[in-house]
Amino acid sequence: MKALIFDSTLKIAEIENPSLKPGYALIKIIYSSICNTDLEIVKGYMGFKGVLGHEFVGEVVSEGSRFYSKKVVGEINCACGACEMCQKGFPKHCFNRGVVGIYKYQGIFAEYISMPEENLHEIPAGLELKNAVFTEPLAAAVEITESVHIRPTEKVFIFGAGKLGLLIAQVLKLNGCDYTVFSRSAQKVEFARNMGLNAKKTSDLSSDEKAPVCVDCTGNSDGIQIAMNHLLPRGNLILKTTVAEPKKADLNSIVINEYRITGSRCGPFAPALRLLKSALINVEPLIEKIFDFNDIEKAFEYAGRPGALKVLIKH
Amino acid sequence: MKALIFDSTLKIAEIENPSLKPGYALIKIIYSSICNTDLEIVKGYMGFKGVLGHEFVGEVVSEGSRFYSKKVVGEINCACGACEMCQKGFPKHCFNRGVVGIYKYQGIFAEYISMPEENLHEIPAGLELKNAVFTEPLAAAVEITESVHIRPTEKVFIFGAGKLGLLIAQVLKLNGCDYTVFSRSAQKVEFARNMGLNAKKTSDLSSDEKAPVCVDCTGNSDGIQIAMNHLLPRGNLILKTTVAEPKKADLNSIVINEYRITGSRCGPFAPALRLLKSALINVEPLIEKIFDFNDIEKAFEYAGRPGALKVLIKH
Repeated sequence: MKALIFDSTLKIAEIENPSLKPGYALIKIIYSSICNTDLEIVKGYMGFKGVLGHEFVGEVVSEGSRFYSKKVVGEINCACGACEMCQKGFPKHCFNRGVVGIYKYQGIFAEYISMPEENLHEIPAGLELKNAVFTEPLAAAVEITESVHIRPTEKVFIFGAGKLGLLIAQVLKLNGCDYTVFSRSAQKVEFARNMGLNAKKTSDLSSDEKAPVCVDCTGNSDGIQIAMNHLLPRGNLILKTTVAEPKKADLNSIVINEYRITGSRCGPFAPALRLLKSALINVEPLIEKIFDFNDIEKAFEYAGRPGALKVLIKH
Repeated sequence: MKALIFDSTLKIAEIENPSLKPGYALIKIIYSSICNTDLEIVKGYMGFKGVLGHEFVGEVVSEGSRFYSKKVVGEINCACGACEMCQKGFPKHCFNRGVVGIYKYQGIFAEYISMPEENLHEIPAGLELKNAVFTEPLAAAVEITESVHIRPTEKVFIFGAGKLGLLIAQVLKLNGCDYTVFSRSAQKVEFARNMGLNAKKTSDLSSDEKAPVCVDCTGNSDGIQIAMNHLLPRGNLILKTTVAEPKKADLNSIVINEYRITGSRCGPFAPALRLLKSALINVEPLIEKIFDFNDIEKAFEYAGRPGALKVLIKH
């Protein structure tokens, strides 16, 4: 089958079809999309080499599977089921995990992927496949309210109006809280406002404007410091950014201001699918362009432009 | 009166007695002690200049005070009572605060100090004054269980067996949890064990030994990274260390492992006084030497030795 391989450079290559272990399903990829993590891996993040990609919708084609002929999305952490973290009920933190297209596991920029059945979720009727590709990033946004209690009476500053930031802003808008999404780019602020979101330029924030909850989803190494500059003492800072470049921040201020910091990675698929199906989250404006799989190298270039929105791949 | 002034160097100087504002009490210092923060300020931390010191017991000598002739300890954050953080019930995070001997407020290495009455706590009968000097650092240890729910069933790694680490270990021992205090120094490990505490050398920890709760009270800039190396995914990391030198840590791992980090500074005096009075916390072994106030410059040198324990000053 054809697959997009990263090994210091990106190229389409012919590789063997994935093999099928018991409890696994073979999935034919229909749509995939490019995530900032993919772009960071290409810059050296995680030191990953192999087939890239982890956001997809596909159809299960292995006849023995209980999902046979269903359209599915898949959680990206493939767990052992036996280690301390699996036993504690946190398979996404399995010590022996593979992470699809990120760590020790083949990615989905390919014709097929083999995945554990327990990772799969059927796409509900009425949800368009192109929109369902957003299940994984939307789950990452929902993970914020899954791990931190954000009160509807609170003010929340979201730093970063990229693909993830626009999903996070929509999730927090549903909470009823007084949120604003900030960006350095006037164009992104305009885009967010056109989506009906509260958005401002970061440079319009005065140094004494602070919130009890801040989110860093800038995707930049200085995002954590900017968020801390606008966090009230005792406030909650939620970190979403992972970057190849080392992050810098004044860590003494965590102690002095008694900040509470929560790192947040992948999230739960079931609520993300419910929100997508009920159209409470609007993902269509986030789709900037759809490329054919044969043009995926071009798609990566396109997705790497500053301010790029979601780039989908039709397999 | 005589006071210890820091202004790029430390020296005893003659300065005016503090003036007394309404709602303030004048306190004659009886004992004081040297904290690592004092030593860090001398290295440049906080950029503070003036009378150093914040750990003390004293007697209120202003006749108008409701504490007149009582022996007291005092909380070190002097708040405005009017700002957003004061209104929220967090005067220690007051935006306009002075912090005794640390930030915009005269310290207690002097004959007298003037402090807001609301900061004072009477020392209960039966508690020795030398031991009551530990109220402030013990309150900082108690702040850990005040801000983070540590379960008695949990394993807790405490990095740093200095003065604060030995107080934190004692507080966590009372919780019933499976705690160990770690130090690079064999001598400190031995000392902690002689106090009846679970203690090990940091180098005896293998890289795969991890706990769901870690505390960094190493006082070193690399303490946060060592603690993160031994923290389970989704674990709680409590930060106590503030140092002049910038701290370094891999901040991506906060996101990947979904760590929860809580910065922790000053704590509540009332529970600290209750624990001291009931002798559930043993502070006497921590007193290494008592200097006369006239020898306070020597006391600073003594307290700055690696592995030094608590140095008290008799005023």
